Amino acid sequence: MSLLTVGSVAFDALETPFGKTDKIIGGSATYITLSASYFTQENNLVAVVGDDFPQTMIDNLNQHGVRTEGLQVRVGEKTFFWSGKYHNDMNTRDTVEVQLNVMEGFDPIIPESYQDCQYLMLGNTAPAIQQTVIERLKNRPKLIVLDTMNLWIEIANSDLMSLLKLVDVLVLNDEEARQLTHEYSVVKAAAKIRTMGPKTVIIKKGEHGALLFSEGQIFFAPALPLESVFDPTGAGDTFAGGFIGHLAKTDDISFENMKRAVIYGSAMASFCVEKFGTERIMNLTQHEIQTRVNEFVTLSAFGL
Amino acid sequence: MSLLTVGSVAFDALETPFGKTDKIIGGSATYITLSASYFTQENNLVAVVGDDFPQTMIDNLNQHGVRTEGLQVRVGEKTFFWSGKYHNDMNTRDTVEVQLNVMEGFDPIIPESYQDCQYLMLGNTAPAIQQTVIERLKNRPKLIVLDTMNLWIEIANSDLMSLLKLVDVLVLNDEEARQLTHEYSVVKAAAKIRTMGPKTVIIKKGEHGALLFSEGQIFFAPALPLESVFDPTGAGDTFAGGFIGHLAKTDDISFENMKRAVIYGSAMASFCVEKFGTERIMNLTQHEIQTRVNEFVTLSAFGL
Repeated sequence: MSLLTVGSVAFDALETPFGKTDKIIGGSATYITLSASYFTQENNLVAVVGDDFPQTMIDNLNQHGVRTEGLQVRVGEKTFFWSGKYHNDMNTRDTVEVQLNVMEGFDPIIPESYQDCQYLMLGNTAPAIQQTVIERLKNRPKLIVLDTMNLWIEIANSDLMSLLKLVDVLVLNDEEARQLTHEYSVVKAAAKIRTMGPKTVIIKKGEHGALLFSEGQIFFAPALPLESVFDPTGAGDTFAGGFIGHLAKTDDISFENMKRAVIYGSAMASFCVEKFGTERIMNLTQHEIQTRVNEFVTLSAFGL
Repeated sequence: MSLLTVGSVAFDALETPFGKTDKIIGGSATYITLSASYFTQENNLVAVVGDDFPQTMIDNLNQHGVRTEGLQVRVGEKTFFWSGKYHNDMNTRDTVEVQLNVMEGFDPIIPESYQDCQYLMLGNTAPAIQQTVIERLKNRPKLIVLDTMNLWIEIANSDLMSLLKLVDVLVLNDEEARQLTHEYSVVKAAAKIRTMGPKTVIIKKGEHGALLFSEGQIFFAPALPLESVFDPTGAGDTFAGGFIGHLAKTDDISFENMKRAVIYGSAMASFCVEKFGTERIMNLTQHEIQTRVNEFVTLSAFGL
């Protein structure tokens, strides 16, 4: 089934305890579409960049089967830029610099050829932009998945609350869930979020795995225990891409299949953190992905 | 198979965001033997209390099938006392007061009737005392499981390193594993601990579950997502009691069975935190335990 992803395509500059990068390719929609490309070939991107964005990278996305008709290239403007520095525990980071550039006033135009999308992934960007995408689709997709972040919970709360009423699945991390609901327990937080609109909530806990909540059901997916996390940037987006990619591929939004989708998402995220930026998820094989997924089976399987 | 547990039997005074207690019964060996009592009836305790310790509580242990021949009651002395206060997140706590009392100079005497023990649980107490217990057993048990804490890693490091060479399984939490090995990654920490003696390492991550490491194998057991944690005191000991209790009951120390034992331990710990102190694990039914264990199956099972 056809997947539409909206979000940021950006330059990132990263510093971790293991090293630092110059400007490399990042952005929520980049990670999501790359990750989803291993699952579905109907992979449509809506985003905006400046004319400083390398054509080779657009070619790269295309080679992964990502359709970029909806990727606006604004002449004379610069691509969104973010730089961040991770602390020693790799769980917390500081934003060093943000240049909104083309993201300011981004108008998400949906190409006509994208209108048939059944699966919509609203990657992290301003809630008002995410809502505009929903409003511009002639038919409501079968499943709308939303990712957001602490910034929007803080500065665009009413936009976000309005948007939440329109989506099926909210993906966020544990701190964001607490911030959104003022509940410390993730169980209580998920229950509260389910009253705000999304029938399904996924709470990501980084190295501690992810929880999937739906009506009366909870599923826990572990994170793969890793010897080292090289760079966590994009891991959450890569998770989301694997999650919705698997759903779009199988066209099955049952709870049982969402559990599998969470495992696929977790497997994709476990690759992402092995190298800087998108490097590791740029060149994966189906065999590598299947082997990694099997590691999740081994990790958590037990018989009574 | 026969289980021998050594550790503390104590008075605790607790304060959590939900309330506070006067002196209630606590101590590592109390939680361990109570938890193990749901699995094995050959449940032998070695510990020391003062004559201020209530006979009703000893009767209570006996009613759970815990043999207290090895529980020394020192006349004219007082029972070990600990008081602690939990922070709002329930993951961290401050020790308010410690009175060692009878624990000072505790000489762990092993009754002759305990000498047949096949499973030895060294509950949290000074490493030198734990090692004395091993030395006083005429035959080496089939399995020796050690629990320890940050205090001993700090003030009795060489005793602990000597003891580690003698045990099969070390159970500790993630912070303790980092402190012991100076490795941030729990995967690297477990590998390092396995060079110190124990062939098997269990790293407890509280609300984030527990990891079981053995040669070339890793198993992850989730913690049950709870709406609220009322009092985490003793959860780690209750986990250990369920773990070794299941192993002693089944007399099977294969990796597959240790996985089940970790699940049973996690289930027992999930009860422990529901009420203050030992209250919840004092009166469980086999049906409640089995129902809880089935929740772990539901929580983490998926099919590809």
